Amino acid sequence: MSLIVIGSLAFDTIETPCERRERIVGGSGTYCSLAASYFTRPRVVSVVGRDFPERFLEFLRKRGVDLRGVQVKPGKTFHWEGLYGEDPNQRTTVKTELNVFGRFKPVLPASSRRADIVYLANIDPELHESILAQTGRPKIIAMDTIRFWIQNKRQALLKEIGRADIFFANDEEVRMLADGETNLIRAAKKLLNLGPKLLIVKKGEHGALILNKNFVFGVLAHPCEAVIDPTGAGDCFAGGFLGYLDKTQKFTPAEFRRATVFGSIMASFAIEDFGIGRFETLSMAEIDKRFKDFKRLVSF
Amino acid sequence: MSLIVIGSLAFDTIETPCERRERIVGGSGTYCSLAASYFTRPRVVSVVGRDFPERFLEFLRKRGVDLRGVQVKPGKTFHWEGLYGEDPNQRTTVKTELNVFGRFKPVLPASSRRADIVYLANIDPELHESILAQTGRPKIIAMDTIRFWIQNKRQALLKEIGRADIFFANDEEVRMLADGETNLIRAAKKLLNLGPKLLIVKKGEHGALILNKNFVFGVLAHPCEAVIDPTGAGDCFAGGFLGYLDKTQKFTPAEFRRATVFGSIMASFAIEDFGIGRFETLSMAEIDKRFKDFKRLVSF
Repeated sequence: MSLIVIGSLAFDTIETPCERRERIVGGSGTYCSLAASYFTRPRVVSVVGRDFPERFLEFLRKRGVDLRGVQVKPGKTFHWEGLYGEDPNQRTTVKTELNVFGRFKPVLPASSRRADIVYLANIDPELHESILAQTGRPKIIAMDTIRFWIQNKRQALLKEIGRADIFFANDEEVRMLADGETNLIRAAKKLLNLGPKLLIVKKGEHGALILNKNFVFGVLAHPCEAVIDPTGAGDCFAGGFLGYLDKTQKFTPAEFRRATVFGSIMASFAIEDFGIGRFETLSMAEIDKRFKDFKRLVSF
Repeated sequence: MSLIVIGSLAFDTIETPCERRERIVGGSGTYCSLAASYFTRPRVVSVVGRDFPERFLEFLRKRGVDLRGVQVKPGKTFHWEGLYGEDPNQRTTVKTELNVFGRFKPVLPASSRRADIVYLANIDPELHESILAQTGRPKIIAMDTIRFWIQNKRQALLKEIGRADIFFANDEEVRMLADGETNLIRAAKKLLNLGPKLLIVKKGEHGALILNKNFVFGVLAHPCEAVIDPTGAGDCFAGGFLGYLDKTQKFTPAEFRRATVFGSIMASFAIEDFGIGRFETLSMAEIDKRFKDFKRLVSF
């Protein structure tokens, strides 16, 4: 049982219609590993600057996250600033300061060189090759991406999607990658033709679909009355999904379905507070309760 | 077992990015009663002009629809013209010629004066009172509306929503009626405060939610690769939902769930062809098969 998460530990400055928070802790690696930590002991590979708070690393360790792959470098930590509109799906990037993350060359510690599942979060697709050369042959290669790589490294990205077992994307990204095809199912099938074994389409408040050539499964989003901060929801989805799979070690359609539900659940908690705030109190009992709520939501 | 549908039988001119169809048969009463006809024997109350094709009325009769409440008046039938964008949810009304429907004073034939379920489709909310005065005390008063009444007869509409048992609306209409509240769950709860016992929020490709103060249930939309013509999907949803309820005569949460699935199913078939084309061949066996597909789509 081993899940390696390669992604950012970062500072986020977030402004919503209600509130502004300066330089709170975020990052794809942070969100994903926190969500996964309820199911397995994820190992994070990342880089931070010397300004990154030790008390937060300690919080991750207490949650069972293995940080031996996190390098601390002279300089500043990655900092992203984003602005949300009244519709939480409308997000504008105000600023991206890559800082030490811009020179990130992932080096996996010996402890992370045999992985069952490798998750390549929103990192440069041209780094995938060198990372996978270090991991042996994982059972599952999973990846996500962001608009930035779709626009700037499209060819490299398409190649990496082709060799992934699981590709996570939101609906907008799926349509962009499928040359603007508006029908989501047709767009998804175009992406499946690139080669990934499973495509997971995250649709925010509308839930998520997972598809491959033989099956399709969908979950609704948890009916949430107060989206406080949508940042990190996608990475928490991946964390819940992959953390659960790593725990079961069964890569069957039935488990993919349950993994999708756990992904949705972790995303639904993440948005209930700013940054990683919700994880300070979230318990496994609350997750189990929400699993039952999801079941009740769709049963007929 | 009796479902009365008060709505339009009409001509629609429809243009999609692929094709244009002139003056094909449509209308809320048409779509709703066709969808309902797979479960019960709906009775339609409406008005058409002398230009309305007898062969189509014959088609409805063959499907078991009771047309004794349809008046034929001198003049032309209601004609609507709409234009769809690449995204089938983007619809522009090009023309609305009310014709005989503009002077419609619903008179229920004796055969329709004792109804279990009355469905007031997208008609003027100021007509509801006089219709309900003719129906005795139905077990269920259900209604839908359109943007036009929200903008032009808001107060009358809100009053009618308050006394409905079931109010069908799409997500955009729910937000408009809830004074622009963007969070759909909060918007829905605002509408429930008006008084309807059940609110059904149709979300197009994202499925539907049904809510009241005690429960929430959701369905995903059938994953459709080719939306040919979305016209009438909402009315087919209502027809499947109410037709099924009229058949079971059980108004319990468990049956509301199944009714929602049948509503989604009927909508999913309607959009597979222009106008009412799909109903020319649709069989109960296909509906039953899709019910199983819906179950497989969401089971975990």
